[in-house]
Amino acid sequence: MKAVRVHEYHVDPSIDDIPEPTITAPLDVIIKVGGAGVCRTDLHILEGQWAEAMGPTLPYVIGHENAGWVAEIGAGVTNVAVGDTVILHPQPSCGLCLPCRAGRDMQCQNAFFPGLSNNDGGMAEYLRTTARACVPLDPSTNPADVAALADAGITAYHAVRKAVPLLTPGTTAVVQGAGGLGHIGIQCLAALTATRIVVVDRNPDALALAAKLGADVTVVADGTEVDQVKELTGGAGANVVFDFVAEQGAENNGWAMTAPAGSQFVIGYGGELRIPTLDFVAGEKNVIGNIVGTYTDLAELMVLAQAGKVTLHTQQYPLSAALDALHDLDAGKVRGRAILVP
Amino acid sequence: MKAVRVHEYHVDPSIDDIPEPTITAPLDVIIKVGGAGVCRTDLHILEGQWAEAMGPTLPYVIGHENAGWVAEIGAGVTNVAVGDTVILHPQPSCGLCLPCRAGRDMQCQNAFFPGLSNNDGGMAEYLRTTARACVPLDPSTNPADVAALADAGITAYHAVRKAVPLLTPGTTAVVQGAGGLGHIGIQCLAALTATRIVVVDRNPDALALAAKLGADVTVVADGTEVDQVKELTGGAGANVVFDFVAEQGAENNGWAMTAPAGSQFVIGYGGELRIPTLDFVAGEKNVIGNIVGTYTDLAELMVLAQAGKVTLHTQQYPLSAALDALHDLDAGKVRGRAILVP
Amino acid sequence: MKAVRVHEYHVDPSIDDIPEPTITAPLDVIIKVGGAGVCRTDLHILEGQWAEAMGPTLPYVIGHENAGWVAEIGAGVTNVAVGDTVILHPQPSCGLCLPCRAGRDMQCQNAFFPGLSNNDGGMAEYLRTTARACVPLDPSTNPADVAALADAGITAYHAVRKAVPLLTPGTTAVVQGAGGLGHIGIQCLAALTATRIVVVDRNPDALALAAKLGADVTVVADGTEVDQVKELTGGAGANVVFDFVAEQGAENNGWAMTAPAGSQFVIGYGGELRIPTLDFVAGEKNVIGNIVGTYTDLAELMVLAQAGKVTLHTQQYPLSAALDALHDLDAGKVRGRAILVP
Amino acid sequence: MKAVRVHEYHVDPSIDDIPEPTITAPLDVIIKVGGAGVCRTDLHILEGQWAEAMGPTLPYVIGHENAGWVAEIGAGVTNVAVGDTVILHPQPSCGLCLPCRAGRDMQCQNAFFPGLSNNDGGMAEYLRTTARACVPLDPSTNPADVAALADAGITAYHAVRKAVPLLTPGTTAVVQGAGGLGHIGIQCLAALTATRIVVVDRNPDALALAAKLGADVTVVADGTEVDQVKELTGGAGANVVFDFVAEQGAENNGWAMTAPAGSQFVIGYGGELRIPTLDFVAGEKNVIGNIVGTYTDLAELMVLAQAGKVTLHTQQYPLSAALDALHDLDAGKVRGRAILVP
Repeated sequence: MKAVRVHEYHVDPSIDDIPEPTITAPLDVIIKVGGAGVCRTDLHILEGQWAEAMGPTLPYVIGHENAGWVAEIGAGVTNVAVGDTVILHPQPSCGLCLPCRAGRDMQCQNAFFPGLSNNDGGMAEYLRTTARACVPLDPSTNPADVAALADAGITAYHAVRKAVPLLTPGTTAVVQGAGGLGHIGIQCLAALTATRIVVVDRNPDALALAAKLGADVTVVADGTEVDQVKELTGGAGANVVFDFVAEQGAENNGWAMTAPAGSQFVIGYGGELRIPTLDFVAGEKNVIGNIVGTYTDLAELMVLAQAGKVTLHTQQYPLSAALDALHDLDAGKVRGRAILVP
Repeated sequence: MKAVRVHEYHVDPSIDDIPEPTITAPLDVIIKVGGAGVCRTDLHILEGQWAEAMGPTLPYVIGHENAGWVAEIGAGVTNVAVGDTVILHPQPSCGLCLPCRAGRDMQCQNAFFPGLSNNDGGMAEYLRTTARACVPLDPSTNPADVAALADAGITAYHAVRKAVPLLTPGTTAVVQGAGGLGHIGIQCLAALTATRIVVVDRNPDALALAAKLGADVTVVADGTEVDQVKELTGGAGANVVFDFVAEQGAENNGWAMTAPAGSQFVIGYGGELRIPTLDFVAGEKNVIGNIVGTYTDLAELMVLAQAGKVTLHTQQYPLSAALDALHDLDAGKVRGRAILVP
Repeated sequence: MKAVRVHEYHVDPSIDDIPEPTITAPLDVIIKVGGAGVCRTDLHILEGQWAEAMGPTLPYVIGHENAGWVAEIGAGVTNVAVGDTVILHPQPSCGLCLPCRAGRDMQCQNAFFPGLSNNDGGMAEYLRTTARACVPLDPSTNPADVAALADAGITAYHAVRKAVPLLTPGTTAVVQGAGGLGHIGIQCLAALTATRIVVVDRNPDALALAAKLGADVTVVADGTEVDQVKELTGGAGANVVFDFVAEQGAENNGWAMTAPAGSQFVIGYGGELRIPTLDFVAGEKNVIGNIVGTYTDLAELMVLAQAGKVTLHTQQYPLSAALDALHDLDAGKVRGRAILVP
Repeated sequence: MKAVRVHEYHVDPSIDDIPEPTITAPLDVIIKVGGAGVCRTDLHILEGQWAEAMGPTLPYVIGHENAGWVAEIGAGVTNVAVGDTVILHPQPSCGLCLPCRAGRDMQCQNAFFPGLSNNDGGMAEYLRTTARACVPLDPSTNPADVAALADAGITAYHAVRKAVPLLTPGTTAVVQGAGGLGHIGIQCLAALTATRIVVVDRNPDALALAAKLGADVTVVADGTEVDQVKELTGGAGANVVFDFVAEQGAENNGWAMTAPAGSQFVIGYGGELRIPTLDFVAGEKNVIGNIVGTYTDLAELMVLAQAGKVTLHTQQYPLSAALDALHDLDAGKVRGRAILVP
């Protein structure tokens, strides 16, 4: 089959002909890929940023945001059958360790992460995952239309879902960064809460889209965004700041625009927070970490998507044009999310 | 192997020689039974009370409260190895349906219940369960010492655990019924909360034991128990009533001794609650259902047990004396929990 | 001033000339009434149903659903000033007892309930309440337009708000009874959750309105409603049933249409729930009581109302036509909520 | 009356003869001081560290940790009577703003802080506070024995109470700093949870006391404490770290010894946290701010104290020896908490 493989860091991947993956354990599932999202993390992989943390043996196939159809199942698989349309949780979990038993899939002690850890990913015709990663979809769903929810979507949803109890009517939520994840976060906030949604971004086009998707107020990030958020909130700041940027100073702005007793949810990364411990005490403020989401999160997000409450902007490329997609992403030419279709 | 089998309702079971169970699916686990609890539900099974709801094909092996050692594992089992000492969650769950993914094992859509549903139970030398039922124990643990935690223990713990947020210092909890489950519930309350523990029971011996296990106040259930609880609480009633009896009028007493904004947790069964809907409104009171517990509950309870914070009174019988144990239980002659040891 | 006073039970009240109320304590506030809702509870008061529980000395002024303008304040009042537009929490609380300190206003140990307890209510030109009952409104608000939120609204909102954590995407909520409270509950559900909203009512007009306000599915309560809800939910039932009826059999239907691990929220009253304790255990189901709501609930609801997310149907009467309003309500001729305007 | 007044920063306060405070508003309460704790914050006030943030007009009376007897009450006070024994929440709140209505007293928008803000404190014979600060005590309580719970106690309790849901059996909690606050925190943890308590401190005497008060493991903070905590937790770290130090590097150690999905609770202050945003994402870890506590917290803590579950080490000084107490504290000569007794 065709697959996009990294052979060397700092060099374009190549599209190789390799054998199809096979069932290796009773819960394994082979997926015929219908859509594979292209993520900024893929660029970081190519730059070698994940080499040490994940240690994949090169060459390997990238692609961690996938949907498709079940092609083959292991002997222990009971939740999906060959032919089912599915979206895949990016990190198949064991279902047996204590975090898994409590529903905290991302803390699974035996997970792997196809396309990121030392396991082939989904920029290929077929992918090996497990039963515990498969969320069944309505058979009429086109996998390429929803694949981006498998990673970008679940990550935004997870953070919003955790914050729902904090976002009662009368509160203000800031979404910092209205890009791939942020524009899904805005829709999740509008679907799950009645909070006032303030969106902060440098890009006027992103803010125009945000307004259509549910933002109550948009703020241009021109260096005065902290002051603007404070002014919008009577000087207090926002009850929750969803920081989808978290680098280049945005992370410390995020903290500065968080109200007393409020929380900054960190979802993006790259920067460093520097906060005097007195600030945590005087304001009783919190910083909340977030990573991807649970299987339940993905299943719930698909309910929102299939009800039309969360929609995606995607730009599809044939698998053979994977390099174009990666280059376009790097050059800032992709509107919404790039999706490879094998 | 030897096994206690029901051949006909309203008739004593017999101890038969039957083949050992075998692995039938990748997540199956065969357990060498080290201890099997004898429960009042077993008497109800023999009376045919569960015939319709569970529909087992007779003859079948009873016993749903088990601990032992792993004897054989299926191809997909990764959490236990042959020889491990384990206690078993009574209802092996699938790990793939939505309730399982949220950690709500008892609502699993594909579970079975060995010894109760149409599957052989643990009053035998060997038992078939699955990987998802196995809680690993310290190898030095004697399974017969802890088996009663697999059903009586987890059920009491589950109810207490759910109530912890309601039981802040200054509150009062009533434990109605200080028998097999109740005496574990008292210890769980003492371990997990600083609430005032009031224990209500007809039996002075049970109350004496309750006082040793952590009860702050004991109340003889002589028909004045509702008034006594009200008097102990300035007329208000208890914030939480754990109703381990829930029959013969205790259920309605439980409601009557629940304070405004309080909750009656129903764990026992057999009676009928009759409550004007106005009572729910005027008092903003709740009735909370409870069934067994989650895998996480059992794992947490074993931490308490291995730290000596929950102890059990058991009376051991050889497997060959299973009928004696059942008869003794029926006759009220068992102190603590009867355990069969193969 | 003019005031609607009950002189005798089972007899129409009369519109009397009585002295205006005066400040009696430092936190007292005198309100110039702008709108006073007419509630079915007022009819029950006239029938003497509340005589024993509340023990008012006759004659007294009824009316417990009020909004207006601040006319005079006590020496300790700091949160409102003369002239402010306000809506009133129906039960002024002390702010000093433990339930008040935890935000549980309805469990205040020193509260009174103007128009219901032995204190004059709001069907009058002026009303005495306290600072802790006053929720400030935008000055441009017409009190008569929002008064019905003070009791009917807060009660519906309170129940929905408590249920939000249970109503994640993919769940189903049933609203039983789409009348005065129910039609507000539907709007609150649509504003605060992405659950599927199923509305059950006997009246096709009420169901037509429900569909406009956010119901996803409407079900005619023709005796098959339990089966219909089960069919809509794959046989399971609803995760939450909001029972705004809770009499004449609806209460037991509400329980029957509640899914395993689900909850019936009782808001209406008049009937009696009869539930075997085994049902609480086998299904791990709950019955949750609800009474009015907190000050915070009312403040949040006013945010929804002022954002247009909750709208009311009202029918205004001059105060002098109070008897017409009461008779119309009794005769089923009021569409939405009747409001007296002094 | 005699009172300890600051006339100038960086200079010892003096003990002056000043008029007794008087009732100024309906909710005011005058307290005859029975005990006033001496806190490290008092030293910081003398150093001028709070001059800008709090802006008191000099001279003023310090002392923010007080208990005593009610001497006089305003016209609106209904919860205490003259002669009652009380402990005082340090920050009297208004009871009318939205945070107050939700029980979040420390976020009150109209609070003052006697002894810290521009209001006289409790190192005096009499103190002015309000009804909302008074927690009634058993009349037999000696205020000097419990005064330290009014600030040090409530602060430790508040953080522990917030963390209870995170500290199920099988988890590990680290208490970093077993001094004035930490040794109360240990007792609160032992009373409210069954978590494993690991205490980290430089001082072997403090660790010996910690072991008596409920610590399961003690760790000498000798530069290897992060490694020791990791080793105790299978490499993972603690589920919750209570950082009562939060300066001089302890704050970053606290973060390093927090497990994935765990939380560092910041209670001490003085240092600066520097954390790459990637750490929040990769580990899904949180930093949680904490300030003092609510009225409810103090009331609950007094239940623990009066049940003997939290005990204090105090060293009493007559009010006239206030300077000795301050000097002893500064010199590290106070064991437990210094208390001034007028």
